[in-house]
Amino acid sequence: MSTKSLAGALLAAATAAVLAAAPAAAVDGPPTGATPGSKAGAQGSVYRDTHVSAATATKMLAAVLAAAEGTDRVSAAIVDRNGTIIAKVRGDGAGPLSVDSAIAKAKTAAHFCRPTSEMAGVVEGNPRLADIPGSLFLAGGVPVPGTPVCLAGIGVGGAPSGDTDEQYARAGLAEMGGGGK
Amino acid sequence: MSTKSLAGALLAAATAAVLAAAPAAAVDGPPTGATPGSKAGAQGSVYRDTHVSAATATKMLAAVLAAAEGTDRVSAAIVDRNGTIIAKVRGDGAGPLSVDSAIAKAKTAAHFCRPTSEMAGVVEGNPRLADIPGSLFLAGGVPVPGTPVCLAGIGVGGAPSGDTDEQYARAGLAEMGGGGK
Amino acid sequence: MSTKSLAGALLAAATAAVLAAAPAAAVDGPPTGATPGSKAGAQGSVYRDTHVSAATATKMLAAVLAAAEGTDRVSAAIVDRNGTIIAKVRGDGAGPLSVDSAIAKAKTAAHFCRPTSEMAGVVEGNPRLADIPGSLFLAGGVPVPGTPVCLAGIGVGGAPSGDTDEQYARAGLAEMGGGGK
Amino acid sequence: MSTKSLAGALLAAATAAVLAAAPAAAVDGPPTGATPGSKAGAQGSVYRDTHVSAATATKMLAAVLAAAEGTDRVSAAIVDRNGTIIAKVRGDGAGPLSVDSAIAKAKTAAHFCRPTSEMAGVVEGNPRLADIPGSLFLAGGVPVPGTPVCLAGIGVGGAPSGDTDEQYARAGLAEMGGGGK
Amino acid sequence: MSTKSLAGALLAAATAAVLAAAPAAAVDGPPTGATPGSKAGAQGSVYRDTHVSAATATKMLAAVLAAAEGTDRVSAAIVDRNGTIIAKVRGDGAGPLSVDSAIAKAKTAAHFCRPTSEMAGVVEGNPRLADIPGSLFLAGGVPVPGTPVCLAGIGVGGAPSGDTDEQYARAGLAEMGGGGK
Amino acid sequence: MSTKSLAGALLAAATAAVLAAAPAAAVDGPPTGATPGSKAGAQGSVYRDTHVSAATATKMLAAVLAAAEGTDRVSAAIVDRNGTIIAKVRGDGAGPLSVDSAIAKAKTAAHFCRPTSEMAGVVEGNPRLADIPGSLFLAGGVPVPGTPVCLAGIGVGGAPSGDTDEQYARAGLAEMGGGGK
Amino acid sequence: MSTKSLAGALLAAATAAVLAAAPAAAVDGPPTGATPGSKAGAQGSVYRDTHVSAATATKMLAAVLAAAEGTDRVSAAIVDRNGTIIAKVRGDGAGPLSVDSAIAKAKTAAHFCRPTSEMAGVVEGNPRLADIPGSLFLAGGVPVPGTPVCLAGIGVGGAPSGDTDEQYARAGLAEMGGGGK
Amino acid sequence: MSTKSLAGALLAAATAAVLAAAPAAAVDGPPTGATPGSKAGAQGSVYRDTHVSAATATKMLAAVLAAAEGTDRVSAAIVDRNGTIIAKVRGDGAGPLSVDSAIAKAKTAAHFCRPTSEMAGVVEGNPRLADIPGSLFLAGGVPVPGTPVCLAGIGVGGAPSGDTDEQYARAGLAEMGGGGK
Repeated sequence: MSTKSLAGALLAAATAAVLAAAPAAAVDGPPTGATPGSKAGAQGSVYRDTHVSAATATKMLAAVLAAAEGTDRVSAAIVDRNGTIIAKVRGDGAGPLSVDSAIAKAKTAAHFCRPTSEMAGVVEGNPRLADIPGSLFLAGGVPVPGTPVCLAGIGVGGAPSGDTDEQYARAGLAEMGGGGK
Repeated sequence: MSTKSLAGALLAAATAAVLAAAPAAAVDGPPTGATPGSKAGAQGSVYRDTHVSAATATKMLAAVLAAAEGTDRVSAAIVDRNGTIIAKVRGDGAGPLSVDSAIAKAKTAAHFCRPTSEMAGVVEGNPRLADIPGSLFLAGGVPVPGTPVCLAGIGVGGAPSGDTDEQYARAGLAEMGGGGK
Repeated sequence: MSTKSLAGALLAAATAAVLAAAPAAAVDGPPTGATPGSKAGAQGSVYRDTHVSAATATKMLAAVLAAAEGTDRVSAAIVDRNGTIIAKVRGDGAGPLSVDSAIAKAKTAAHFCRPTSEMAGVVEGNPRLADIPGSLFLAGGVPVPGTPVCLAGIGVGGAPSGDTDEQYARAGLAEMGGGGK
Repeated sequence: MSTKSLAGALLAAATAAVLAAAPAAAVDGPPTGATPGSKAGAQGSVYRDTHVSAATATKMLAAVLAAAEGTDRVSAAIVDRNGTIIAKVRGDGAGPLSVDSAIAKAKTAAHFCRPTSEMAGVVEGNPRLADIPGSLFLAGGVPVPGTPVCLAGIGVGGAPSGDTDEQYARAGLAEMGGGGK
Repeated sequence: MSTKSLAGALLAAATAAVLAAAPAAAVDGPPTGATPGSKAGAQGSVYRDTHVSAATATKMLAAVLAAAEGTDRVSAAIVDRNGTIIAKVRGDGAGPLSVDSAIAKAKTAAHFCRPTSEMAGVVEGNPRLADIPGSLFLAGGVPVPGTPVCLAGIGVGGAPSGDTDEQYARAGLAEMGGGGK
Repeated sequence: MSTKSLAGALLAAATAAVLAAAPAAAVDGPPTGATPGSKAGAQGSVYRDTHVSAATATKMLAAVLAAAEGTDRVSAAIVDRNGTIIAKVRGDGAGPLSVDSAIAKAKTAAHFCRPTSEMAGVVEGNPRLADIPGSLFLAGGVPVPGTPVCLAGIGVGGAPSGDTDEQYARAGLAEMGGGGK
Repeated sequence: MSTKSLAGALLAAATAAVLAAAPAAAVDGPPTGATPGSKAGAQGSVYRDTHVSAATATKMLAAVLAAAEGTDRVSAAIVDRNGTIIAKVRGDGAGPLSVDSAIAKAKTAAHFCRPTSEMAGVVEGNPRLADIPGSLFLAGGVPVPGTPVCLAGIGVGGAPSGDTDEQYARAGLAEMGGGGK
Repeated sequence: MSTKSLAGALLAAATAAVLAAAPAAAVDGPPTGATPGSKAGAQGSVYRDTHVSAATATKMLAAVLAAAEGTDRVSAAIVDRNGTIIAKVRGDGAGPLSVDSAIAKAKTAAHFCRPTSEMAGVVEGNPRLADIPGSLFLAGGVPVPGTPVCLAGIGVGGAPSGDTDEQYARAGLAEMGGGGK
């Protein structure tokens, strides 16, 4: 094989590798040429997406607890973009409302891909937003960034103030480091 | 660059491309070099997986209804490997137990990556399996294949026999065609 | 108007009347000429069905209570083919399990369009049927007949034996008289 | 037959046809002559109504997804007037709150037979309306028209604004075309 | 026996008769002489109370439906002081939110022993009352009077206005006539 | 007043007292003369029944705990004939399944008015009984006697054997002493 | 043994006794020397905490009922810091909303370690607090003090005013006396 | 200080230290001298117990995931003796039934303080045990030992066999090391 075609093949392979490794939740459209709705030869499309791994989620929980250790008693949850709870923990001596609070904050952050602390103003303008089942527009939830949409939300509940809850949530988020692409 | 090293590089690139394009739910291990548990420089790991797309799921529902049309009144559900319901439909005049039956069959097929009709024998040997919350070991649920693990389950309920339910579920599955990569 | 065209008009009107008055849960296929899936000119199809009226359902409850009066303390429920509870009553002094028992029997009768007393043998041959969420294969539930599928189920719970429960359920069913068309 | 009696018969048939073809949820009163509460000779009354067919509901889901494709990630639900979910879908990458939001909007639209966007002003005047279990007074829900009462509600959740959700819901509604009679 | 002792005996008997016949939910204190907490010779105390009978409850449902017939499509519920649903009905074509609305209004009326229409002002002064789980401070719920505390609540939901719902609820209440002692 | 009429008055008063004090759950039929279903002059009927008082229920809980003290760690519940939980307690260090077990045993005992230990044989003959929602046919539940039907059930869960649970339940039942009239 | 070493031993023993007897929910850090995350030789840490005993909880219920006896009909609940219900009772004739109200007030008091009556002002400043699942910011809940965090909450519901509910809750709290260490 | 009194003080301190350090869930009886039920001077009793710390629980989750890594896809839960979930995680690509399975196994192990694998034989002899709400008698749950009662249960679900689930659960248990005192 000539160097030129080998280089071309290498380039093609590299391009393929880059495309395949597209990190974020890119939707694969239907295979080219397939006519929506026609069965003959159609191939169902799949949707590929990215999630915080379970191992990382447990690290996030540990990081939240460590950040709060000796100061506050909190609970934490990491909720996937799809609504499932990846992991959660009830902190030692954390209040009875702390777990459900953490879950709802995580869900809300994962839904709007914004910290719940930022959403407060939005809700003031439209109180009906707070009626969305499963939501909680209190500081303490932060999104895990991703492309094109956030991957998950981390929620913390039980500290005396929501801003402190958010502080601990960000300690958990730090476990993603530069990851999550 | 020598041909040998170029070939080696090409092989490496091709391998990387193949690995990166592995369609099914391959787990990305932590970035090389990261020491589990050490925060400094660590990157949280992500988990990439594949799902039946929402558009395909609605086609599956339509296919199930079309297959049963004029003969039976059934309901159907497509449940993701992660437990979420991607889509569901209550058929016209389908029985009151048909939807929850379809969901549970779909979940069970998605969990064991086997048709529920095949699981009956397994449960006979271990009746306690039937106590697993959310499970239903009745024919009518089939997995949507994937690598290395199935992507979802399609469940149908309401036909006079579970084998007929399964027949309709497979009509839905046919919408995946050669897809699901 | 000529006799011939009048007769034709009469025939057309009669046909329309007959079609429109199709009593049971006949599915109206899409308007003739519409191609499934094509939007241009398509009309969504509707499904017409028949239900036990709310007023009749309350009479059924009263009939069940009257039948049991002085002998047994029972609860009763009428559950629609679609799974909704049309009406229910907790009898005076009826046992704590009687209402949920009545509902589940009604659902089961409405699903299989058979008295639950008849289903016992079926379940013995396939114990997994009893795992269907919401089902209860105990005597006391009877279907409300209809065409082409039963309209609802009447369930009664709380009598010392399921056969007695069924007796009371049939007293409720008698309120349909020759109705249900 | 004389012209007069033929005309009379025609009129009768036409009237019957009109009455029988009353498209929406007309309640059949008890058979004439039946005395409420008297069992002898009474016929239970039935209630006939009209529903969005399951097949059409799946088309609606597909239409919503298609309308949002490439722009927003949404979920959708069609909820029957009687409260049952006819069909629902979780869109690819749609937020964790999107499904329950869609369901509640659909229910609310189906209950008031008005778009939820119109209800906001009503709720402002009576905030207690927002406490109705299962309701959500946020734009994104539209009724499926019918006579004398709407047939169902279509709800969409997950777009950045409720007005956009409503836009997608109307794309789903378009599947009814001129249907719904 | 002397007149004096006979009169005394008569007075004692009359007093006993009056006390024993106290119709409403009078609490029987522990038998005289029993020391609270001491087991020897103690008799557990019982609490006697009064309920709307099941038969009357079904009549109430029928009365509500009859009152609304031809005008509105409503659902109704009678909820006991103890929180159990004595009876409920989903009206023909009533909205999807109507049943849960009726139940919550009934519960609220039974809890405060006041029509829910009257409670609106109270809630305005203390919005947190509306957070009480299971409550709904919307017109449409009325108490069934009793002594010393109301027996139950009747709730109606689905009419265009809560005041109309209340009107229908009162039609149901009329079934108590002079009863409820 | 003459002795004779005084005696007669006394007798009348005594009879009234006896009748009014009829202890058990006697159903008051509709007032004599009222025609079922006719509104004019009808009086709704009420149902009077007897309950374990709340104060006695707390004593029962204490008695169960005291009986088990130092030997076993159990939880207990007293469930009313109408299905409501009158009182319950989670014992110190009692197992995670103990409370729901106690509640279900109490409900089952209150439903059949028999100790759950006696029901085991019945269920063996008809396994479908065990499918009744909310039931648990394990020793540890005993009825609180009453006339004509038991008043409640006391359930205990968490001891190594159900017979021991029943032993503790009977210690609670002893708090009724000769009461329950 | 020399005085010095004896004093040293005494001091060590005294220190150990003080540390071991730290009454409240002191977190035991991992055993000295253990490196977090390293498995070799690591010992999992435990968390010791203090709870209102079940026996005391039943006394609290009795005290609440006794305080309200003859005046109001209330229900009560004692909820542990960890969210479990230690004990609860439905008072004779207490309203249908009273139990869930008591539980939510208890949870809220146990979470913030403050009487719910005090929290009203806080919620006015941040209405979103009232959206925390399971919370109820109405007077009637009081914390059971402890160190470093409250042990539980006692909630009462059903009196005409929340302040009266709180009064009864404090009667229950008095059962702790000087306890709770 | 004399040797004798010093020795006595030392003995007292040592005794206090021993008593205070009683590791397991010892119930503190009421303070000596307090008469049960008498309010004057009574002190409520407290119950001290020991829990797996939140930090350790997260390590357990990580250990389970690490043990299964590359072989199986599992979920895990640590459930406290009191029934609360201390922590849980859904493994990457773990089946839809795996989380609820893990929770139920953990609860069952924590209730009986025995591995669920050992309980299978017990259930065979008494099938009604499997009806206990929340239980699951499938291998995969192991108790965390403690004195006098186990502290918690660790449950794992999703491996092809329950014995493998148990293997992973024991990897989590190993995080307790010699701890749990």
